Amino acid sequence: MNDRLARVTLMRLAEPGDAVMGRLVASCGPEAAVGQVREGRLDPEFTRWFASSHRRGSAESQDEQITTRLKRMLASWATRLESADPDRDLAEGEESGARLVVPGDCEWPTQLNDLGDSRPHALWVHGEADLRFSCLRSVAVVGSRAATPYGTHVAAEFGAGLSERGWAVVSGGAYGIDGAVHRGALACQTPTVAVLACGTDVTYPSAHQQLFAAVRSQGVLVSECPMGTRPTRPRFLVRNRLIAALSRGTVVIEAAVRSGALNTAGHAVSLNRNLAAVPGPVTSETSAGCHRLIRQGTAVCVTTPQEVIELVGTIGDDLAPESRGPILPRDELNPETRRVLEAMPVRVGVGPATVAVAAGVDLETVLSCLGALAAAGYVERVPRGWRLRPDRSPGR
Amino acid sequence: MNDRLARVTLMRLAEPGDAVMGRLVASCGPEAAVGQVREGRLDPEFTRWFASSHRRGSAESQDEQITTRLKRMLASWATRLESADPDRDLAEGEESGARLVVPGDCEWPTQLNDLGDSRPHALWVHGEADLRFSCLRSVAVVGSRAATPYGTHVAAEFGAGLSERGWAVVSGGAYGIDGAVHRGALACQTPTVAVLACGTDVTYPSAHQQLFAAVRSQGVLVSECPMGTRPTRPRFLVRNRLIAALSRGTVVIEAAVRSGALNTAGHAVSLNRNLAAVPGPVTSETSAGCHRLIRQGTAVCVTTPQEVIELVGTIGDDLAPESRGPILPRDELNPETRRVLEAMPVRVGVGPATVAVAAGVDLETVLSCLGALAAAGYVERVPRGWRLRPDRSPGR
Repeated sequence: MNDRLARVTLMRLAEPGDAVMGRLVASCGPEAAVGQVREGRLDPEFTRWFASSHRRGSAESQDEQITTRLKRMLASWATRLESADPDRDLAEGEESGARLVVPGDCEWPTQLNDLGDSRPHALWVHGEADLRFSCLRSVAVVGSRAATPYGTHVAAEFGAGLSERGWAVVSGGAYGIDGAVHRGALACQTPTVAVLACGTDVTYPSAHQQLFAAVRSQGVLVSECPMGTRPTRPRFLVRNRLIAALSRGTVVIEAAVRSGALNTAGHAVSLNRNLAAVPGPVTSETSAGCHRLIRQGTAVCVTTPQEVIELVGTIGDDLAPESRGPILPRDELNPETRRVLEAMPVRVGVGPATVAVAAGVDLETVLSCLGALAAAGYVERVPRGWRLRPDRSPGR
Repeated sequence: MNDRLARVTLMRLAEPGDAVMGRLVASCGPEAAVGQVREGRLDPEFTRWFASSHRRGSAESQDEQITTRLKRMLASWATRLESADPDRDLAEGEESGARLVVPGDCEWPTQLNDLGDSRPHALWVHGEADLRFSCLRSVAVVGSRAATPYGTHVAAEFGAGLSERGWAVVSGGAYGIDGAVHRGALACQTPTVAVLACGTDVTYPSAHQQLFAAVRSQGVLVSECPMGTRPTRPRFLVRNRLIAALSRGTVVIEAAVRSGALNTAGHAVSLNRNLAAVPGPVTSETSAGCHRLIRQGTAVCVTTPQEVIELVGTIGDDLAPESRGPILPRDELNPETRRVLEAMPVRVGVGPATVAVAAGVDLETVLSCLGALAAAGYVERVPRGWRLRPDRSPGR
């Protein structure tokens, strides 16, 4: 059994993200790990590590309990090994059009190594884009499945805005925010990456058949599950760590306080990735999770794709323009002239002395300011003195 | 001329917030300050202070220019002094129903001393409430005049929520956010304070006549301008420093990037008051100023009145409850039981061995978990094995 077949077997043996199996594989390699499960005998060194890392305090009386636990784990792996058929799995996957990517392959995204023992054993990748290359400049955008029209609008804008600027969007292919952000990204040219909690040959949700086809033709579908795997709640949660690990940062758009998107946010933080959240109406439950992240200082508040890029991009390279209002011509007047302008009457003209009292400046200043203001078209001379030009009456 | 008459005179001489006049008054008292303006001769010590504080670098060649500037200032004060009539001002104010509050009075809000030289000379106060007492536990809530329905809704909620909890709301009595927050506060029992940029006898905007009447009967109208003063743009800006200084903190609800509310926010920061901003849709221009304050870390993101009180209240006394979702019963299952539950089929029953493979746990565990799950009403026995109870099918 070679490395690839062993990894395909491991995908069947343990649930994704099983860090104990991850540790076993890291310590002796995938082939030996499968061998040890088959023989029902674990390496003594690994057993010692397991015992020491699960012991609380120094009490060795727990050891029997810990040994039982490890035996049960081994039994559960062995139960699954009996029904595993890696040759068939590999053939089926390739038949479906997907390719197996394992650590060491050119397409393996090395940033997944940050996951340590919960790194996936291998990935099924299905689509035209190169997974590793796509993820070099990528941002995860995640959020509620029960998104509001506001959320899906913003998600589509962010997807398109990031893609337009050459940033690949990584998301989970779900209803709501995920779907909207993939669609936004597909409207531009950069690949988009959908990380699934089921096999790449399973269309979940089934209404996303066309969306997944579009992602395959312009990006990739990715999964650490064997072909045919159905999604379950725990699989969604462990899948989220891949979304966070693949990208340089995670943006949350709409998440209620118990949304799965906050789980992805947590992974991003513990992986030292950037985390950002998009605010929304405080009257909307689906923005409450985002606001909590911002309030706690866990996430940066972002309002545009440019601000996301500023956060995850190279320092100094990708600065977002600061939001500004228009510069009004009156802002450029000097303070005294502005005071004179503010003191001018709208209808009936008045003499310079009255203006001087109203503006709180002396007569000489008023006379010079009135000249400047008339030249600039702000005021005009009328029979009884000076007044604002009716077309320049200042809105306040 | 006594202290009160002198202060009424000063309200006419200089524009509100004129720190040079403020310095003169601080150095020799209001009566002597008026006397010096009348005689056209400033105290030499004050003149030296003015020169030294306006000199850039050490060049003494600027002194002539600086002296000219001070002379012009003195001339403009003198021009206004000629038409000032403090006895009439005082009588008119009292006739209108307002009262003059000066430093040293019981009702003088001593926190205004934080303004230093730009502290107002005196305040006209009109209404049933006591200004000083009302402001002891107060929060300024400000925002755009061109507010959206979202903004006015949130402002009314915040006004009512703060008032309900015994916090006085300070605002500017303008259209939009200001009006909505005063109205919200009036619906509850705590006084509300409207700080105007015009005389307390001037109703600006005129559509707020009823609102101002309500504020007078349950709170106070406040102004540092003489009776009859019309609002001008610079007066709005200097008025904002009073709103910030009177309250323990400022909350911005909806502000475009050039909104006057951001000017109030700036005063709050430079006065070491708390600053908070309410987020809104990123698609709304009128929330862009709030988001910028949050992004820069200048303002804390707040979403409820409780969170505002937590910020401005006494530490440990006024904690806001953290937003939480409901706790689901399945969250309380242990991890193994949850895995078994997740692996259960929805329709056709299956045997425990199949469940063991799907869940990745051994047969013995499955059997004990199935018992517990059946007892809790999650699963049921059917002719061909076990399945989820149709009414407990997990939403994901």
